[in-house]
Amino acid sequence: MLIGITMGDASGVGPEIILKTFRDGEIRQPFVVFGDLAVLDYCNRRLGYKVALQPVQRPRDLADRKLNVIDFGLLSEKDVTPGQISRASGKAARDYVVRATEAALGKEIDAIVTLPMNKEATRMTDPDFIGHTELIAAVCGVPKVTMMLTLDQVATTYLTTHLSLSEAINEVRKDKILELIELTGKTLRRFIPEPRIAVAGLNPHAGENGMFGDEDKLEIRPAVEEAQKKGFSVEGPLPPDTVFYLALRHHRYDAVVCMYHDQGHIALKLFDFEGGVNVTLGLPIIRTSVDHGTAFDIAYQGVASSRSFVAALDYAEKLCG
Amino acid sequence: MLIGITMGDASGVGPEIILKTFRDGEIRQPFVVFGDLAVLDYCNRRLGYKVALQPVQRPRDLADRKLNVIDFGLLSEKDVTPGQISRASGKAARDYVVRATEAALGKEIDAIVTLPMNKEATRMTDPDFIGHTELIAAVCGVPKVTMMLTLDQVATTYLTTHLSLSEAINEVRKDKILELIELTGKTLRRFIPEPRIAVAGLNPHAGENGMFGDEDKLEIRPAVEEAQKKGFSVEGPLPPDTVFYLALRHHRYDAVVCMYHDQGHIALKLFDFEGGVNVTLGLPIIRTSVDHGTAFDIAYQGVASSRSFVAALDYAEKLCG
Repeated sequence: MLIGITMGDASGVGPEIILKTFRDGEIRQPFVVFGDLAVLDYCNRRLGYKVALQPVQRPRDLADRKLNVIDFGLLSEKDVTPGQISRASGKAARDYVVRATEAALGKEIDAIVTLPMNKEATRMTDPDFIGHTELIAAVCGVPKVTMMLTLDQVATTYLTTHLSLSEAINEVRKDKILELIELTGKTLRRFIPEPRIAVAGLNPHAGENGMFGDEDKLEIRPAVEEAQKKGFSVEGPLPPDTVFYLALRHHRYDAVVCMYHDQGHIALKLFDFEGGVNVTLGLPIIRTSVDHGTAFDIAYQGVASSRSFVAALDYAEKLCG
Repeated sequence: MLIGITMGDASGVGPEIILKTFRDGEIRQPFVVFGDLAVLDYCNRRLGYKVALQPVQRPRDLADRKLNVIDFGLLSEKDVTPGQISRASGKAARDYVVRATEAALGKEIDAIVTLPMNKEATRMTDPDFIGHTELIAAVCGVPKVTMMLTLDQVATTYLTTHLSLSEAINEVRKDKILELIELTGKTLRRFIPEPRIAVAGLNPHAGENGMFGDEDKLEIRPAVEEAQKKGFSVEGPLPPDTVFYLALRHHRYDAVVCMYHDQGHIALKLFDFEGGVNVTLGLPIIRTSVDHGTAFDIAYQGVASSRSFVAALDYAEKLCG
């Protein structure tokens, strides 16, 4: 197994997170970085990390005990502007991701783990850029992907993410819920024989038998029943204010299928703000990502947490099976 | 200060929670129980608690070092049916609450702390019974109350509670939000000079400047700005998936004003399932309540957690100022 790590925007915390975790022996998987050697070298010197960097031509030509980098040669030390939006960094970050995705599609690597891009910076040269995930989906030729947010033991999937709450409610439909339960189950089966899936209700107390809204009864329950018939170990709709407690504190479930963005995000970010991993489902490749942004305000200070990155590497490995 | 404690449904965990916390010295406030001495006596013997019980006629006629009980004489030992719905217990539980509320209105006591009633049991003799809180509001002659759910350091208030999510969204209106911010602020000012209030957004990322829904921009923000002008220390709308993390883990806020039931309930129940206290705002009296039900499945076994009860007593004391 070999993981491709994209360095992310050179003005943000990506470079230092790679260097620090490597120096501290926290990267347990074989990996290669898609990025700019000059940036890593500058960051390395600036923070005194003394990591041995090794330029490589192809993903599998790796040197032992060195940080292997596929050097794009797009940025020089002078281009590095810590904490500043940069046209060159934005473009370069995009290039790392495109090339890494292609490498994963071509089986040169087995998974990609991405560090944050800066939307504004990338839009300076690619005005149509919507987001990191959309870019990867486009390179893969996939029209629709689904987001999974995970902590160590519990994964959450979402019927919708960046949609207004009232639009999100309109998407609570039996067929879509069934599809998401199946996708969640199949993803976790890569490393758990029989994943235990909970489906959160939409309304307070999961509607209390139709007293507060009927989506739980008319859409969610039938989807759960059909998924059970298809052999998934799934329960629901469960009261939203209890299901995360049961999953996270009592390990009752391996995954919670969420009806809208904040349901799961409130729970996971409260439970462990820095340990979250984003996984993109529906791609022909494995892609995990840190659950934070470029953090320009603390870039190149050596204080950025690497927990999400280490967790993203571990989760990619699990998904590789 | 004197707190009136209502015993709750005799078939549930109310009696044992009172006895156990009293025996363990966890009740730090002067108090009197509104309940049935025969039930407490039976529970006391059954669980071997050896608590000295003292019948009293009036709330302030209290004996030292004894559990003072205003004995309603409605239930005898034979009427106690642990874990079973009972017509007699349901009716008695209602009577304790009515009398305690009247005592609070008449300033015989300074606050009431309620233990759980059983809705079904009470409906056997009062078919119009909606809920515990609605009963208290009716006795007080108040048409509308608001729920506050609190943990030790952070209170949450709700624009709506038991309403479908789509109806709840329709209630996200500037005037109602402003009213709730003021009510939240005024309540906390009873014991915090300048409470720091956060207002959660409605949509993901609080709408990201109107990209995902416009309620955050058009309704919530103007309400927050008007509350600021009125002298409240309030911020918002804040991203729902960060505001609870900031409040609960970083003590950045004393209260979070929530747009719907599950927003705050997901967070608080995950953070501390057993430590929650319900506070009813909008009454002419102080009323706090445990945040759990009758727990018939574990009644009279001596295993029920008393944390919420102790927290409810402490919170009532704080509200007394």
